[in-house]
Amino acid sequence: MSIILYELVGADPARPFSPHCWKTRMALAHKGLAFETSPVPFTEVPKIEDGFATIVPVIRDGERRIADSFVIAEYLDTAYPDRPTLFGGEGGRVLSRFVESWSQRTIHPFVSTSRALLAIHDSLAAPDRAYFRETREKVFGQPLEDVVVGDEARLEEFRKKLTPLRALLEKQMFLGGEAPLFADYIVFGAFQWLRVVTPWEVLAADDVVAAWFERCLDLHGGEGRKVSRAA
Amino acid sequence: MSIILYELVGADPARPFSPHCWKTRMALAHKGLAFETSPVPFTEVPKIEDGFATIVPVIRDGERRIADSFVIAEYLDTAYPDRPTLFGGEGGRVLSRFVESWSQRTIHPFVSTSRALLAIHDSLAAPDRAYFRETREKVFGQPLEDVVVGDEARLEEFRKKLTPLRALLEKQMFLGGEAPLFADYIVFGAFQWLRVVTPWEVLAADDVVAAWFERCLDLHGGEGRKVSRAA
Repeated sequence: MSIILYELVGADPARPFSPHCWKTRMALAHKGLAFETSPVPFTEVPKIEDGFATIVPVIRDGERRIADSFVIAEYLDTAYPDRPTLFGGEGGRVLSRFVESWSQRTIHPFVSTSRALLAIHDSLAAPDRAYFRETREKVFGQPLEDVVVGDEARLEEFRKKLTPLRALLEKQMFLGGEAPLFADYIVFGAFQWLRVVTPWEVLAADDVVAAWFERCLDLHGGEGRKVSRAA
Repeated sequence: MSIILYELVGADPARPFSPHCWKTRMALAHKGLAFETSPVPFTEVPKIEDGFATIVPVIRDGERRIADSFVIAEYLDTAYPDRPTLFGGEGGRVLSRFVESWSQRTIHPFVSTSRALLAIHDSLAAPDRAYFRETREKVFGQPLEDVVVGDEARLEEFRKKLTPLRALLEKQMFLGGEAPLFADYIVFGAFQWLRVVTPWEVLAADDVVAAWFERCLDLHGGEGRKVSRAA
């Protein structure tokens, strides 16, 4: 029986956009495991697997249910040790947490205060829209429309913040070296989130980070390209 | 025969300050290997081991000579696999490169344009001072004294840039998890560089990064404390 991946979607169930769900989708593809996806809108997340989790992604693998992209990756590497590794051992597992911390505090804050925020809102079905606006406006303390003002002006600063990643990718193909590891999917998920919700090109065409992202989109039979760039 | 570690020093041979040399000193201590240090001022680096390398650190281990802190760590983990690991496997080795890239593009640019720059200059013997000033002023395109202006004003921004590290260390003891890995020594080296050359406290006392740095100073019999904080 295939693994089921519960993925966050908006009104269109064929366009999963959550960065965390993309990490897991890529991790499953990396392991070469058969999986089916089950689309879940925001307001249905608490109903996944009879209230098993309040966050996505969630996977069901036979009788096992696991939530949280990092925990899922740990589970997959442990449960399927004969398939390609996501961490490359214990040191890789723990240092992937640093990559996660960097990505979520460098890329995510930019994406979640950019036009992507409104694009996500607009892509949701009505009840999810109301939920999304209410929860996010509570966090930001202002209307979504005000949060995103000036994103174009913040772009240059954002690109500079990618310097540590860029310098690395000038020397090697992936964060994982010659081949990708879960660390790549952590960062990939953030850029895929942007790609799926908005046509805005945040990376310069000649940026090695853009070239790496395209390489990631090509991986595993083009798993990342199964959802097109937002028009 | 003990390993010889060639370390960069100023006029005082007992005060090695190079971040890269500290990475190697900690790596040797982590492996529990006996080593002796050989102090080398800037202008003597090209004479190490009959011109073997143009950079420090360099180690000699029997007939083997190795330069570059990262390459040395790789050598040590390969040559001494039965001793505590520096990388925790191949994934840890390759992701340590991301930590290195982050550290050298986040912490190093701040340190090397702060009062630490002048403090290093002032700590050098006369011929090294001239060499240091000339090479650095060529890079910066201005006098050292002008480069460091406003370092206090840049401090808050620098502290913010440590957010990915700080968030990680709020959840775990070391970058390596419960115990340190070479990734810890990469970042430690940068803060130790500051500590050895200037009394300036760049981390707030209640910063978890400061607590982690103190833990690193305690490691391996207090190896990092063998050189006192600059007065």
